[in-house]
Order: sequence, then C-alpha cells, then structure tokens
Amino acid sequence: MTPADRPPTGAQRTGMSTARLEAFSDAVLAVAATLLVLDLKTPDESGGAGIWPVLGHQLPTLAAYVTSFLTILIFWVNHHGLFHGAGPVDRITLFINGLLLLVVSFISYVTSVLGHALQTGDHDREAAVLYALTLAVASICFSVLWRRAGRRTHRLGLGLTGPLLYVVAALVALLNAPASLALDAATALYFAVLPQTYRTGDRT
Amino acid sequence: MTPADRPPTGAQRTGMSTARLEAFSDAVLAVAATLLVLDLKTPDESGGAGIWPVLGHQLPTLAAYVTSFLTILIFWVNHHGLFHGAGPVDRITLFINGLLLLVVSFISYVTSVLGHALQTGDHDREAAVLYALTLAVASICFSVLWRRAGRRTHRLGLGLTGPLLYVVAALVALLNAPASLALDAATALYFAVLPQTYRTGDRT
Amino acid sequence: MTPADRPPTGAQRTGMSTARLEAFSDAVLAVAATLLVLDLKTPDESGGAGIWPVLGHQLPTLAAYVTSFLTILIFWVNHHGLFHGAGPVDRITLFINGLLLLVVSFISYVTSVLGHALQTGDHDREAAVLYALTLAVASICFSVLWRRAGRRTHRLGLGLTGPLLYVVAALVALLNAPASLALDAATALYFAVLPQTYRTGDRT
Amino acid sequence: MTPADRPPTGAQRTGMSTARLEAFSDAVLAVAATLLVLDLKTPDESGGAGIWPVLGHQLPTLAAYVTSFLTILIFWVNHHGLFHGAGPVDRITLFINGLLLLVVSFISYVTSVLGHALQTGDHDREAAVLYALTLAVASICFSVLWRRAGRRTHRLGLGLTGPLLYVVAALVALLNAPASLALDAATALYFAVLPQTYRTGDRT
Repeated sequence: MTPADRPPTGAQRTGMSTARLEAFSDAVLAVAATLLVLDLKTPDESGGAGIWPVLGHQLPTLAAYVTSFLTILIFWVNHHGLFHGAGPVDRITLFINGLLLLVVSFISYVTSVLGHALQTGDHDREAAVLYALTLAVASICFSVLWRRAGRRTHRLGLGLTGPLLYVVAALVALLNAPASLALDAATALYFAVLPQTYRTGDRT
Repeated sequence: MTPADRPPTGAQRTGMSTARLEAFSDAVLAVAATLLVLDLKTPDESGGAGIWPVLGHQLPTLAAYVTSFLTILIFWVNHHGLFHGAGPVDRITLFINGLLLLVVSFISYVTSVLGHALQTGDHDREAAVLYALTLAVASICFSVLWRRAGRRTHRLGLGLTGPLLYVVAALVALLNAPASLALDAATALYFAVLPQTYRTGDRT
Repeated sequence: MTPADRPPTGAQRTGMSTARLEAFSDAVLAVAATLLVLDLKTPDESGGAGIWPVLGHQLPTLAAYVTSFLTILIFWVNHHGLFHGAGPVDRITLFINGLLLLVVSFISYVTSVLGHALQTGDHDREAAVLYALTLAVASICFSVLWRRAGRRTHRLGLGLTGPLLYVVAALVALLNAPASLALDAATALYFAVLPQTYRTGDRT
Repeated sequence: MTPADRPPTGAQRTGMSTARLEAFSDAVLAVAATLLVLDLKTPDESGGAGIWPVLGHQLPTLAAYVTSFLTILIFWVNHHGLFHGAGPVDRITLFINGLLLLVVSFISYVTSVLGHALQTGDHDREAAVLYALTLAVASICFSVLWRRAGRRTHRLGLGLTGPLLYVVAALVALLNAPASLALDAATALYFAVLPQTYRTGDRT
C-alpha cells in the first residue's frame, strides 16, 4: 500500500474517503445556506419603516433567499446519494467537487445581488441572468460528478436536465427577471419531488 | 437493493441515513445559533457611548439573542432524540426537516428585527408578532417531524403545546412586545426543564 | 429501555451521546473562532490609509483576536478530554454545556468591543472588564462541566484556577486594559502548556 | 491507561484522536472558505452601477476570492492525508495545527484587503506582500505538521516548496501585485495537480 511504488494513473486515488469528502461538503453547504439570511435587511437598515412594509418591500429578496436555500438543500440531498457506496475518490473528482463548493458559496452573493436588483428594479434582468448562470454552472459540476461517480445516465438524459433548465432560466431572464427566478424555484422543486428518476441508475 | 426495481411508494426511502441528516441539521443549527451574535452592536457602531450604557441600551437585543440561542439549542436537543434509532428517512421527512432548517436560519433575522424594534420602541409589537409566528412555524415543523418519526403522541397532546404557546405569544405581542418575548423565553425553558414528557412515546 | 417506564431521577439521562454533543460543540466553537476575523477592518473601511499603518493601528484588535482564537482553541482541546469515555450525558450537563456555547459565541462580541476600545482609548478599561468577566463565566461553566463529568479535582484546585485568573484579569482591567488582555492571553497559554495537570484525574 | 501514572514525555499524548482533530479543522476550513464570499460587494453597496460593470470592477476581488478558496481547499485535501493512519496526536502538533487554523481564518481578512487594494490601486503591492506572507506562514505551519506526522521528506525537499514559492510571491509583490497573486494561484494549482509527490513518503 505504498503509493510511491504505484505507477501514476489517469485517475489517481487520493486516499480521501467519501465520508470525509461528504463531511466537508456538508459543512460548506450548511454554512452557505445559513449565511443567506444575512442578505435580509432590518427596518433600521431600511430607513425606519414598519415591520410589514419592510418585509413586503423585501419580498423579492425573500423569494431569492428561499429559492437559494431550497436549491442548496437539493444539492445536499443529491450530493449524499452521489458517493454512497463508492470507494476512495480520485483527485479529479475531488477538485470538481471543490469547484461545486466554490460555486455554491458564490450563490449567496448572486442571491444578494438578485434580491436587491428585484427590489429596486435596477438591472434586475442582468442580475437574474447572473443568478441562473451561476446555478447552471453548479448544476453542470453536479452532473459531471454524477457521471464520474459511476451513475448510469438516465434514458431521459437527466444529467443534462438541470443545466438545461437553468440555461432556459437565464434566457428567460433576458425578458423578465421574476419569471426567471420562478423557473429557478420550479427547477429546485422538480428535483425535490422527482427524486426517483435521479436514482434509477443507482449503484447497487 | 436496486431502487430502480422498487415500486414507487408514497413515502419513498431516500437512502439518507439519519446520521447524515443529523450532521447537516446540526451544522445549520450551530451556524444559525452562532450568527446571532452579529446582531449586537459595538459602541463605535452605536455612536461612541460607554460600554455599560451601550450594553444597557442593548438589553432588549441581548434578551432576544439569549432567547433565540436557547430556542435553537432546545430544537437541537430534541432534534437529536427525534430520529434516534429510526431507519433511513423518507423524502417528505427530509423536506419538512429542510423547511425547519430554513425557518431556523430565518430566526437570526427576526431576532435582529425584534431586538432593534424593542430598543427603539418603533413597531415593537409588530416585530414581536413576527418573531413569535416564526417560532410557531418552526415548532409546527418540529411537531410534524415528531409524528412522522413514529413517536406516540403524549396524552396531553404535547405535539401541539409548542405551536400553541407560540401562537399565544403572537397574540400577546399585539398588546405588549416584552411580555411576548418573555413568553417565548418561558416556552423554551419549559421544554428545557420538562424533557421527560417529550420522551414518553420514545421508540425503544 | 423504554424511558416511559423509568422513574424520573435528579439527573435524567437524555439519550444524547457524547459524540453528538461533541460534534455540535465543535461546530459552535469552530464557527465562533472563525467569525472573530470579521472584526478586522480593511483599509477602505478605515479611511484609505496604507496597509501597514492600518494593521499597526489595529494591533490591539489583532491582539484581542489572537487571544480569543487561542482561548476558544483551548476550550475545544479541553472540551474534548472532558466527556471522553463518559456515558450518555444528563440534561443538566447538556444545558450547562449550552450556556458555555452561548458565552463562547458571545466572546466574538466582547472581542470586537475590546479591540475597538483599545484602539480608540475610549472606555478601554470597561471593555477589558467586560472581556475578562465573559471569559470568567465561560471558565466557570467549563469547571462545572469538568466536575459533572466525574473528573477528580486536582490537589491544586485547578477547577478554580481558570475562573480566578480571569477575575484577577477583570480587576487588573480597572487599572489598565492592555495589562488585563495580556493576563487573559497568559492564562490561555498557561492552559496550553500545562495540560498534564488537567488530565491528572482522568477517567480511565 | 491512566495518564496520571505515565511519566511526562517531551511529546505528551493528548488523547485527542485524529478523527476529532480533523473534524474541527474541517469545520474551521469550511467556514473560512465560505466566509470569503462576504468580501464581494453588491451593486447597491457599490453605488448603483450595472451588474456587469460591478462584477468587472470587482475582478481583482474575484481573483483573490477564487485563489483563497482554492488554497484553503488544497490545505484541506492535504490536511486529510496528513494524519491518516497516525495515532493520537501530541500537544505540540495540536497547537501547531491551531496556529495553522488561526492563519487560515486570517486569510479571509488578507483576501479582503488585497481585493480592495487591487481594485483601487492604492497600496496594492503592500497588500500583496501581506497576502503572500500570510500564505507563507500557513504553508510553514503545514510543512512542520507534515514532518511531525512522520512523513518522509521528499528528495526534492517538497516540505520547503510551499513556503519558498510564497516567499517568492511576496518578493514579486514588491514589484507587481497582480503578478504576485497570479503566482499564489499558480502555487495552489501546482499542489492541486502534482499531488503524487506529496504522498511519496506516505505512511503505509
């Protein structure tokens, strides 16, 4: 078991257990989800209006916050299934997973940008494009991980469904920002309620 | 063990172990509890007054902070007992748990809103209503999880005690905000000192 | 093993494993330690001066940050030894541990207050009293946990050493704030380099 | 197994398992990596410009953010391999690891300083020196841990490669800040793609 004697291979084993990879990923996902709430403004930061007007005014930010929280939660749920039963992960998988975590941590930024843009109406379509493209990149990372983990592709090409839906959301954003956010939320709900399809090619 | 062969059922097993669910929930609860402290203002953010006047002026925020920290701690303690000994969780349970985590992460926002409102006296009753209703929703999520986890209902209907106490707190808030916060804190203490009742229907 | 049949006792077993208690405590301690860095101000928040002058001006905040980080690290190291090998924790222990976590999360606030007070020289002695008293309360919680976990008291009464040193630091703070912070830091170092004494009464 | 009977040795065993050390380190690394995103400014904090101009203007901050995220990820990946298979850690190792965590949590501060300095062009070389030196100190801590964990030194002296590359980056920073950041990023990538060398002296 001396790695020094082992010839280098394309996909080197890293000795990283899936348990440790999952624990670190869980921590980043949990922190990223919990930090989202920092985007919400209290009334005194908003100029002293009443509680309900401030909340009402922030409905777009609340919608973006809930969508992002749900999306990160879905990534977590499916991330779990991903490596279950797999052996030690190779280094490429490790860094695609790292890229996924980077993009997920970036979600809290684009959520903030989108929330504020929707509230003010300034550049809201640009912000919705940025938001949907960020989710598309996260989704692409996830699909690549999914294949590398040895999952069979579903006959409906589900590995592409996520990225495609988010690209459509980015295109919709060019026309209408709230509609794009609604599509992002619907995509998260779709993966929440249709999990069985995702697990069809499950490793046994 | 190939999920593809398994007929879909109402409550599909997700393959999510309770250990992983608990680890993620713990992380969100721990981060949410720790972020609460960011609500406290330092003297230089408060206009340069002395340390004790600034702390004294922030007593309402401190009270809201301690109440929320204690409440999240109680959720954590009881969340632990919830799934102990249960098998893999089904998807509906997973998403009710996700909703609980969303609401818990939202607690840090309503704590901030309530603390500031109590200090300034502006809209403090509205803020206390928002705070109590948030805890009521968290408590309802918890009670639903409690039943789904197969716990027997206590003869005093404890599964409703939490939500009811928080709804009463919301009604009290219409009259007096500090009294409502005191009731919220008392509810947390009640669940802290009367744990045995919660465990009556414990899975063996 | 049905808790319902078990007569209530003074120290009810909660079914909470030490592993889960440690995992949650670790998470709160890790987040609290990492949040400390948010106190440091970047040059653009400090009015555009150069990097080194801004860092130099923030030396007191840096000193408070390093002291707090080290202190939380010591709590973590000794917290680990605390429950090692003990059975399920009782509810009173659980809530004293919760109080310890509350106070530890509060450390990031008093660190911020002390750092700013030392920099401006305004109310710095009051801030150092607040800081040392906070550490004293954390240390008292720790000593109580230490006894409840069944550790024998060391012949030098080490269970009181921590609280006493921090009370002395609070008294010193009435005269001189930097000296008080130095004593807080020295106390942390003392527990870091003299661990063996702490483990004398270790459970076997 | 009573530590009280054991004669004190230079490197006292702490009873801290590598699993617990890794869990705490993972949590600090995960939180530190996720907090980096708080450096990014939303358009309304940046004066109301469009989304793409604000992002474009923040490219240096984004570059620093990605570099730091990647660097922390590399530390995490290699930190894992570090203690794998080793017995309980001694106290000196524990505190060098603590110092590493302190420096890693400090990375989020120097990232913020560097990002803002690169954007404004004020004191950017000083900021890049600070950034590279911080990474050098983290890298030195890591190399010391690496030796203490009993890893054989690679014939190319890899234990010094990291610190040396970051010292060179600090020297380059005296001339050109973006070039220094590029070297920091290249160093992270070097350790990402050349992992085999790191594992040559792996414990079997």
